[in-house]
Amino acid sequence: MDELFNKNQKILVAGTTVDTKTADIFIDETGSIAAIGEGIRSHYKGEADLIIDGSGTIALPGRVNTHTHAAMTLLRGYADDMILQDWLSQKIWPLEAHLTPKDVYWGTKLACLEMIRTGTVAFNDMYFMMEEAAKAVDEAGIRAMLCYGFIDLFSPEKREAECKATENLVSHIRSLNNPRITAAVGPHAIYTVSPEGLKWCAEFANEEKIGIHIHLSETEKEVNDCIAQHGKRPAVHLDECGILTPRTVAAHCCWLDESECTLLGKRGVFPSHNPASNMKLSTNRAMPYHWLAAAGATPCLGTDGCASNNNLDMFEETKTAAILQKFFWNNPTVLPAHEALAMAGASGAKALGLSTGILATGRPADLILVSTKTVANTPLHNATSNLVYACNGSAVETTICNGRVLMLEREVPGEEAILAGAAAAAAELVKRAQGA
Amino acid sequence: MDELFNKNQKILVAGTTVDTKTADIFIDETGSIAAIGEGIRSHYKGEADLIIDGSGTIALPGRVNTHTHAAMTLLRGYADDMILQDWLSQKIWPLEAHLTPKDVYWGTKLACLEMIRTGTVAFNDMYFMMEEAAKAVDEAGIRAMLCYGFIDLFSPEKREAECKATENLVSHIRSLNNPRITAAVGPHAIYTVSPEGLKWCAEFANEEKIGIHIHLSETEKEVNDCIAQHGKRPAVHLDECGILTPRTVAAHCCWLDESECTLLGKRGVFPSHNPASNMKLSTNRAMPYHWLAAAGATPCLGTDGCASNNNLDMFEETKTAAILQKFFWNNPTVLPAHEALAMAGASGAKALGLSTGILATGRPADLILVSTKTVANTPLHNATSNLVYACNGSAVETTICNGRVLMLEREVPGEEAILAGAAAAAAELVKRAQGA
Repeated sequence: MDELFNKNQKILVAGTTVDTKTADIFIDETGSIAAIGEGIRSHYKGEADLIIDGSGTIALPGRVNTHTHAAMTLLRGYADDMILQDWLSQKIWPLEAHLTPKDVYWGTKLACLEMIRTGTVAFNDMYFMMEEAAKAVDEAGIRAMLCYGFIDLFSPEKREAECKATENLVSHIRSLNNPRITAAVGPHAIYTVSPEGLKWCAEFANEEKIGIHIHLSETEKEVNDCIAQHGKRPAVHLDECGILTPRTVAAHCCWLDESECTLLGKRGVFPSHNPASNMKLSTNRAMPYHWLAAAGATPCLGTDGCASNNNLDMFEETKTAAILQKFFWNNPTVLPAHEALAMAGASGAKALGLSTGILATGRPADLILVSTKTVANTPLHNATSNLVYACNGSAVETTICNGRVLMLEREVPGEEAILAGAAAAAAELVKRAQGA
Repeated sequence: MDELFNKNQKILVAGTTVDTKTADIFIDETGSIAAIGEGIRSHYKGEADLIIDGSGTIALPGRVNTHTHAAMTLLRGYADDMILQDWLSQKIWPLEAHLTPKDVYWGTKLACLEMIRTGTVAFNDMYFMMEEAAKAVDEAGIRAMLCYGFIDLFSPEKREAECKATENLVSHIRSLNNPRITAAVGPHAIYTVSPEGLKWCAEFANEEKIGIHIHLSETEKEVNDCIAQHGKRPAVHLDECGILTPRTVAAHCCWLDESECTLLGKRGVFPSHNPASNMKLSTNRAMPYHWLAAAGATPCLGTDGCASNNNLDMFEETKTAAILQKFFWNNPTVLPAHEALAMAGASGAKALGLSTGILATGRPADLILVSTKTVANTPLHNATSNLVYACNGSAVETTICNGRVLMLEREVPGEEAILAGAAAAAAELVKRAQGA
């Protein structure tokens, strides 16, 4: 059955549900949605190379994860329940010091498999040895915006090396000429990158017309330190370095004040909400979604890496976002289900500069089929509510990206080999670190 | 294959993992664990009627859901994202007014199916028309403590009717003589039950030697109103009515102060944490787990009903509890993974007066097999961490309650008929309510 997967072919999805209406979807050999609507199957069924029975499913644009460190799947469960600084310095960094390019490859392979299984078709990734991440994404068949995590630690020598590493990754990714993989510039955060480094990143991204991926206001300490050091809040500091643009994804944004939200809205920044990670690491404040949305920013959603979540399931993350916003901002009407669902789909696609994120003729076919024959989708008073509050990623049956079938009726070809390869890489990594 | 399910037989689970060690489990024809340990299979395999291959699984005591309203599965997704009072008065209560005994039966059937699929073997239920709930639980093969939601609204006439309804349910459940189903007394909350009603419930529970199931301190309003009306906080008021006992499960407990936590600890009450519901309905405060645990109370876990969650997945709930505690109480070391896992298992079993909740010789075989061959369990640095932070209920492969197989390799006999019956009941319920 492997010949059905990850290749260009004409696909007819027959009898699925789109926005509560029965519809067929025809995908052409370029990977685009050529037609969508009720009853179109009669016209296309002769032409299709593959007919997928969509009955008992809801078709949804594939989920978009706008902030993660994919290869950190290898660290899943390695250390939890610790004070942030101890966790990083005693557990995460010592292990990361032993990571090899092969580890990044296997970690990213595992991440892509998890995303495909849970209905995510595109992600925004920041890590290192990203050439290997690109290889894994290429093989997996999903989309990614990849950046090298630029950390100069305020040293001019290190800055020079980071600029070079960034340039190398961007040029490597251009050379791949894979429409599913784009490069971004990844200044890590204001507490790890000098103003000079930030400015270089902003200028380079502008010259190359590519995205910027940064952490912003994750902790209260970051805000307090920034005020003490620069006499201004983090968003203002970033803006003065040119980092806030309509191609910028700012992860976390927990501690933004209202004026910073207005600034992000004015600049057209995409704030990426990462609720599970923020809760697990005790950031103690939830991203001010309502201020950001009111200011005209487009909030989107991300899982963060598996060391601080510890999975990449965007359905779980969507529920966590919707209920955390209500809880923290003390208002059960904040982030209603339809907005939460869009955050994880259409808004994420926009954040990564993708023309996907909606199901419409002419758009690339990035779509998932979610089973309605599950307990979580019974009864089906309101599909949007069920998708946000009742389902998790296990309800996803079929995943299609750029018109290629990556999972069909919960089967992903090669899954066992990926699980085995990633498990072996993780075990060897720990062994190396403990032997050091 | 249906003949494998829900009957007394000798079962050998071969080659599973218990507490990180490989082990076999032999279940005898009375439904108890007769032997557990490495290599015991050689002794028992000739005797077993059924051998379950446990390789690639972790055996865990079945999860225990200590606060729900099971039949509310029929209302899943019917209304969300509303102010609590509007949600109740405009949506939930008008629909509930049209519920029939048949609806409670189908709603509870659906709930039991969802629990079996996600590894829950026992639950604590408060609703009405509970004879039908008992019928559904009996058929499903899991355990439940059932109570009639006692609401006298401070009227002596209504109180008399509620006492009668409570007595009737207790006597009905005794007459079933089903060791899996027990009765409790269910005074709804201090704002719906008079002090006289509360005292009657306490005395009746004491005479009958059965449990008490109550809502406590869910909202700040409940606390403020109680102080205004009675001049004391809710837990003190309940204690004076005799409600706080070692057989009491108190749901929510969001707004307890430290002295109330001490009181619950002194009385041996089981506080049931319901994090997803609390977040969705904006209670704005998380149960003070650390104070309760320090006071010697045994915090356990519940999902609440599907109208306010909107699922019954105790794995998702366990993660939500672990990360909400960290977030709200601003400490990433609060409620570490092993405590969260026990909350949803051993502590819940104690709360319902069950001798299950641990895997040991002589205990009733209430156990689940969780697949390690999934992405969420790869790598497997730490099974406890993965079970809490990475898995959801879809990782559960096999569910056994009281020695009977209820799900085997994700198959539950009769699932389609339950989904269809519940979906039809839910649709008709809405139609009746809209026609009214």
